[in-house]
Amino acid sequence: MKFDLLKTSPKSAARRGRLHTAHGVIETPIFMPVGTVGSVKAIRPDLLKTELNAQIILGNTFHLYLRPGHKQIEQLGGLHKFMNWPGPILTDSGGFQVFSLAALRKMSEDGVTFKSPIDGSTHHITPEYSTQIQHSLDATITMAFDECTPYPATHEVARTSMELSMRWAARSRAAFIAREGYGQFGIQQGSLYEDLRRESTKKLTDIGFEGYAIGGLAVGEPSDQLHEAIPMAASMLPEDKPRYLMGVGYPSDIIKAVMAGVDMFDCVLPTRNARNGTVFTCEGTIKIGNAAHKLADIPLDPKCTCHTCKTYSRAYLHHLHKEDEILGHMLLTHHNLHFYLQLTQTLRDAIESDTLEQVAKQLLESYR
Amino acid sequence: MKFDLLKTSPKSAARRGRLHTAHGVIETPIFMPVGTVGSVKAIRPDLLKTELNAQIILGNTFHLYLRPGHKQIEQLGGLHKFMNWPGPILTDSGGFQVFSLAALRKMSEDGVTFKSPIDGSTHHITPEYSTQIQHSLDATITMAFDECTPYPATHEVARTSMELSMRWAARSRAAFIAREGYGQFGIQQGSLYEDLRRESTKKLTDIGFEGYAIGGLAVGEPSDQLHEAIPMAASMLPEDKPRYLMGVGYPSDIIKAVMAGVDMFDCVLPTRNARNGTVFTCEGTIKIGNAAHKLADIPLDPKCTCHTCKTYSRAYLHHLHKEDEILGHMLLTHHNLHFYLQLTQTLRDAIESDTLEQVAKQLLESYR
Repeated sequence: MKFDLLKTSPKSAARRGRLHTAHGVIETPIFMPVGTVGSVKAIRPDLLKTELNAQIILGNTFHLYLRPGHKQIEQLGGLHKFMNWPGPILTDSGGFQVFSLAALRKMSEDGVTFKSPIDGSTHHITPEYSTQIQHSLDATITMAFDECTPYPATHEVARTSMELSMRWAARSRAAFIAREGYGQFGIQQGSLYEDLRRESTKKLTDIGFEGYAIGGLAVGEPSDQLHEAIPMAASMLPEDKPRYLMGVGYPSDIIKAVMAGVDMFDCVLPTRNARNGTVFTCEGTIKIGNAAHKLADIPLDPKCTCHTCKTYSRAYLHHLHKEDEILGHMLLTHHNLHFYLQLTQTLRDAIESDTLEQVAKQLLESYR
Repeated sequence: MKFDLLKTSPKSAARRGRLHTAHGVIETPIFMPVGTVGSVKAIRPDLLKTELNAQIILGNTFHLYLRPGHKQIEQLGGLHKFMNWPGPILTDSGGFQVFSLAALRKMSEDGVTFKSPIDGSTHHITPEYSTQIQHSLDATITMAFDECTPYPATHEVARTSMELSMRWAARSRAAFIAREGYGQFGIQQGSLYEDLRRESTKKLTDIGFEGYAIGGLAVGEPSDQLHEAIPMAASMLPEDKPRYLMGVGYPSDIIKAVMAGVDMFDCVLPTRNARNGTVFTCEGTIKIGNAAHKLADIPLDPKCTCHTCKTYSRAYLHHLHKEDEILGHMLLTHHNLHFYLQLTQTLRDAIESDTLEQVAKQLLESYR
């Protein structure tokens, strides 16, 4: 899995890159829509490609393992074929969701034992097993199995957690079956502590991965701490490999993280917020259910070129939202994903034309 | 609104027609997808046209009157513009839904008073008001306001109800504002009684409408009575105007009704059943949630050419159904609507090529 660093920004750490995979080329920086259970909610995968130009999507190993099961997906030809998304797919390791189960799980050096929230059955996931599951799913990019250190964490807790994750990273790597155009990313941990992030990075690069993720951020820390931590964490990672900031975030977070040198993002915000009626626009977010939109014969976003904005009024989308019509979820999802994908396109263009600082400043001001 | 009778079937009462409207041409026989509240559930209206070749859709006056309100839709340019469906729209009169309210409504010679199921507010709908509402919605085809006679009904009850509906039909017609390419349909009533249906037809044709509907069928009577009543009711209607059988039905019902000389159909079955996981195929209906489909790497319908069947396995659709994913509703809706629209296309072709009897026999046998 080859990564070309095409250009670096003269006044920031931002990078314009290109990742070559078995399932296609990814232009970075890029946002990855989340397809939790083998479906990016409320949008057809063919239109995700043809109308929104999505380049890579994310699948959730934990959910797909529980239902329909990775062995079933393997038997049916892998996740790409199963869900009709021939492009690249990144799967998380399942760790984050397992740890979210709280009372339902138990951790050991070996791995995590948990009860299925679906049927109460007991499961045991190890770094090796997580890696095998992702192999069965045919993930283009496999993530190492790690513990997402909760926030806040003392230095000691953060160290213990990070060191376990690094031992698991080595085991994940040993279990990874290399294939042309496929890759595995290691995940940097260490909470907000620079020395721990540095140690984590050293351990990961000693193992060697095709890319590196920043884990354990956007887990509850205040925004200013998040935006101090991102450049600190990103700047340590190897220059010649893609850098992925997991689970982030709002459009403004993505802009700042791109300027800190991050290449890849995923977040449920555009899709989940669409289903709640919260819409991202160039002038900030709007709640389509607000009475102000009841008679508004204008598009969601005056500058947007997506199918929803070219075709429908806020009044119609307000009506669909009030009626809880599926079409409302579809059209708002379409717009919000377009907004995120267009944002990364704009940032890529700005890096190429050396205008990132001005573009970022304008965008950040307009979102207020 | 001009109706061309292009061809009649030599061995049945089936007809191949063409209805010219202000919003486009409708080739008959035709199925009309139902867009209750200004949205055919779970499908984008542009794809309804480009991928499914829908020619006309139905809107529900009662629902749109309550939310968002016909005046609002008028202010926003009419239902076509509001929902991005530039093609023909037929609106029902609201009568059927009002009468479904049972305890919440009260009927008089003047009209129906009812309490809104949304907020309990009181409303009074008359034939004149229903016609005005449909005008505000910019309906291509307006339906006369009538009482759908419940089943079973004694001859006396059916007569009283039919006669009221006919007085209302005259008032609906008087309130109708004629415009080029727009039309209004009268609705034949009379329960299962031939003499009443004949009287009703006489009264309607004396008034004169651009088309005639068969009302009060498929309201609970056994299937054999329905299929005795359809040819009886259809055969009385004028030859030179389109005939619309309201709210019918299963694919086999539509085939039989086409052979009885019906031109237009609407029904919520394809869309509602899709959301319940019930799928129409050339071999009969299947329940996609059944365990038998869990590993089935075959399309829903082996003979179907729709996007869903060309692209997805039953196994994937089973998975989406189990997860209650919106995409599952979208893909099954797409298939079921394609099935109904393709059925009427097949019947149109068969009438043209004088093969309707053989085609109908084959289809009816394969659905068993």
